[in-house]
Order: sequence, then C-alpha cells, then structure tokens
Amino acid sequence: MVSPPTRYLVFFQYFGTRYSGVMETSNDQSVVGVQNYLEKAAQNLKPVVPIKFCISSRTDAGVHALCNSAHLDIQRAPGKPAFNEKRLIYSLNYHLKPEPIRILNAYRVTNSFHARFSALSRTYIYRLLMGCTHYSEIPVFERDLCWAPAGGYLNVPAMQDAAQFLLGTHDFSTFRSLNSETPFQSPVRTLLQADIRPSSGFLSHHYEHRGLEFWELKFRSRSFLYRQVRRMVGALVAVGQGKLTPLHIKNLLEIKDSRAFPPNAMAPPSGLFLKSVEYDEADLDATVGPGE
Amino acid sequence: MVSPPTRYLVFFQYFGTRYSGVMETSNDQSVVGVQNYLEKAAQNLKPVVPIKFCISSRTDAGVHALCNSAHLDIQRAPGKPAFNEKRLIYSLNYHLKPEPIRILNAYRVTNSFHARFSALSRTYIYRLLMGCTHYSEIPVFERDLCWAPAGGYLNVPAMQDAAQFLLGTHDFSTFRSLNSETPFQSPVRTLLQADIRPSSGFLSHHYEHRGLEFWELKFRSRSFLYRQVRRMVGALVAVGQGKLTPLHIKNLLEIKDSRAFPPNAMAPPSGLFLKSVEYDEADLDATVGPGE
Repeated sequence: MVSPPTRYLVFFQYFGTRYSGVMETSNDQSVVGVQNYLEKAAQNLKPVVPIKFCISSRTDAGVHALCNSAHLDIQRAPGKPAFNEKRLIYSLNYHLKPEPIRILNAYRVTNSFHARFSALSRTYIYRLLMGCTHYSEIPVFERDLCWAPAGGYLNVPAMQDAAQFLLGTHDFSTFRSLNSETPFQSPVRTLLQADIRPSSGFLSHHYEHRGLEFWELKFRSRSFLYRQVRRMVGALVAVGQGKLTPLHIKNLLEIKDSRAFPPNAMAPPSGLFLKSVEYDEADLDATVGPGE
Repeated sequence: MVSPPTRYLVFFQYFGTRYSGVMETSNDQSVVGVQNYLEKAAQNLKPVVPIKFCISSRTDAGVHALCNSAHLDIQRAPGKPAFNEKRLIYSLNYHLKPEPIRILNAYRVTNSFHARFSALSRTYIYRLLMGCTHYSEIPVFERDLCWAPAGGYLNVPAMQDAAQFLLGTHDFSTFRSLNSETPFQSPVRTLLQADIRPSSGFLSHHYEHRGLEFWELKFRSRSFLYRQVRRMVGALVAVGQGKLTPLHIKNLLEIKDSRAFPPNAMAPPSGLFLKSVEYDEADLDATVGPGE
C-alpha cells in the first residue's frame, strides 16, 4: 500500500550570479537553474516518485533571492512517516551544501495549496550604488550585488516623483519584455508599493568618506510581468540621470507598447533581489488542523 | 639616461577567500597570493625594472581587506614621465578586472617612505553572526564573510569585560601563533582599541524577524603578532560561550606562552577584515613639496 504524498511549502534563498535563473534547465548546460540543484538535493530523500519543485516566482540569470518559495510533494516508501519540517530543511541544506542556495523554512500545506497561485504578493528590492565614476570603484564585496549606473549621483527626488506614476493599477505593456507567455498574459498589474530609500552596503559604515551611496528601490505587487521590475528601475534611473522627466514615465505607461521603452535602459540583473513572497498565514497552518 | 624610479603608496581591497593570503607565493600553486595578481597587473605598465609590491600588512588565506596598502617603485623608459596617480589606479584596476581585488587610491611618496614601517597603526574588524543553531543558517550572501560560532547567542557583556584586559601594552605571547619570525619578534604590543558593537549584515534589515544578530569586534594597534586578532577573537568568543571567564583572559596574558591558548579556539579567517592602515597625512603629500 502506498501512502499519499505530503505537500510542503519551502522558502529558499540564493546568490543568483551562479545560475541561469531559478527555473530548471536542461542538465547538459554549463550553467543550470537553481531548481536543478533543489531537485538534485531532494532526490537524496529517497522518494517513491521523483520530487518536482513548483517555483512561485521566476527570476532571471543573475537575479538573487533573499527569499523565494516553492511547493513540492514527497511520497515516501510504504510505512515511512512524512518528514517533519525541521528534518526536511536540514536534509535539503545538507545536500545543497556547496551551492549558495539555502532552504530557510518549510511548512506542511494542504494538497490544494499552490506556491505560485496561492501567493498574495511578491516584494522585490533593487540596489543602486551612486557616487562611482567608473565600474572599478564598486567595492569588491558588492560585485554582482548592485548596479552603479554611469554618471555618479542620481536625482532621487525626481525618481521618487516618477515612481508615483507607476503606483496603482495600470496596463504595464511598455514595462514588460516579450517572451513566450506574453500573448496569454494580461499586461494589467497593480503596483502596491514603489519606494526609494537610502540603504547601506556591506560594511559601508567603515568607508563613508568615499562618498559612495547605497539606495534601495522596493516594489510590491500581486505579480509582475516579465522583466517589469528591471524595466521600471531602468526608466527611473534614466529619470535620475536627467535623460527622462517624471512625466515621461506617465507617458510611457499610456503608450502601452513594449517597443516604446527606451533602448538599453533596462537595469542589469545584478542589483535585483526577490525579497519575499507573501501568503495568507492560515495557509501555512496545515499541520495543526484537527484532521492531522 | 635612465630616469629615477618613482615611489607610490597604493591602497587596495580584496575578497580573501580566493587567495592564499596577501603575500606573494610561487606561481605554480593552484591558489596564489593577492600580491601575485598585483604584480602581474603592474607588469602591463611596461616598467624598465619589474615592479615589486611591498605589502604593509600580512593577511592569511581567507582573510579580507577593506583596505590594505603597499608601496611600489616604477621606473619608466627614458623620456617617459612618471604616471600620475589617477592613471596608475585606472591601469592597475583595468588589468586586475576579473579578480575581486581593487586599487582604491594611490599617492606619490618620497623614496624613503615604506608602506610597512611608516604605518602608524592597523585596524581590523572581525564579524560575528549570532543566532544560528547550524552553519546552514548563515545567509548565502554572508558566506565566507563572517563567523557564526556554535551555540547561537553569546554573552556580549562578558566579552566586553574580557576585552578590557587586552587593552594597553602587554606581552601577547599567548595570543600569537608560532611562525618563522617568532624568534626575532618582540611579543609586546600596545592594543589601542578593542570594541565590540552591534553591526548589520548584507540586506539584513529585510530579515530582522529571523533573529540573526551581527556584531563587530574592532582592534587597533601599531602592529599585531602573527594571528593575534584571530586568537584574541577566539578567546573572547569562548568567554561569550561561557567556556572561559573574563578573568581567564587576564590569566592567559600573564602566562605568556602560546601553548597555553585553548586548543581549537582560534577564530576562522572568514570573519576577519583588515579595515585600514593609518599613516601620517604629511607622508602622503610628496607631490606638493617645493622640489617637485
């Protein structure tokens, strides 16, 4: 007799520079996806059926995650009890060890729970470094972890004005890159948050005299279009550089055409971090239900 | 006619995990020193005589530098003027590009200036991560950049009490590791600063709920004995773990014997950063002298 599979929601983080993105790719490539490593690690749990991770939030090559999420089903051999969450976290991390990928947390969830579709919202952070006149001025500890746009300092108040136009519900067609899913996806999204705030760098309080400034752009929405955050950041940086005015951002939204996006303005992946995927707390409480 | 060599003081930073230490090693090893890369980059300046970097402050394999320093002499072909500092920084960084090593600054100095012997003091930072029950809880962005001692939280007030015993002038024999220089070096050093303060991690304001705490230990002295900082940190952490009392630190100092140091207590290199090497400002002003 085969026991039913148990579904888990896991939260995990990764240093994106090493991967082709979060999604699984064919294993014969020189650089593969984070999912490849997650599933390889999970095979060590000796499941009856190979374990597939259903990733909640796609991230591109070079994009990092402080916290992404996925669900997975584990079917164990007859008579073996379901893994408890602590054991699952420990085992996966043990087998992921050489990789900069780490399971942060795990929750047993109901079999109707879906990491992608049950998510209430996603929050991204984009890290900007201002004050560099040349890329070689980026501290070695910040390499691959921020974007230092050409030209040094940016006009932050203008960027903050421009960000206000992006807030709320809009057709974000101009701010998406085209991919195979574009024809099937509505371009309407509701941006719940678009903040621009001073931040800090790794040990940067020890070199304040060098005039480097770290800033963070924070975006929250139920979901985002393909490369929407990087295109929004790129356009806001163009405003900060004086290449666009805040009103141009409003116009770009109204044009509703991805070809209207300024050429080469998209922000690079290195500064982008998926900060969190938000769920209803009640969804993470499957194990305390009366039937378990 | 050959022009005289010009001496420069350069400040540079590096991510130490990739190197066998800062000092030059034989080039046939799989991992070599930071100095090897600096000198290889400098050969591209086409000097008449191969350029040697005289490093001010030795750091071990895995130890990082926010800022180390070295002097070098550049003798150019007849008729060629001395490099200006900006050009020197730019050229060296250009040729160092793939490595996480970066020249921060350069100054023309007099030919009697010596990066090592003219230094007034060195400042080191040691980064501790508290709240991890297992190494796999270290955020992926902090790997190789801190030490998370076993046991989770540390008794910081006890560590601060203990650090007071280290301040001032002492025979630090117990706190040095033996090396080939030991027989020729006085074990007496004057510790000018020994602070223990809360710090922050990379983007740690985005995961404060996880209960991880970053702390920094800061030490300043004219010079340090071999592995003195790592041994002092290790002993202070042992105090924080309740394995030693603050008074034990005083006793260890009084014993004046490196064999009295608690076995395996030395802190790992990953948390150690050379923060700065301090000089007399007047030494960095060679180019504005009346004779130039």
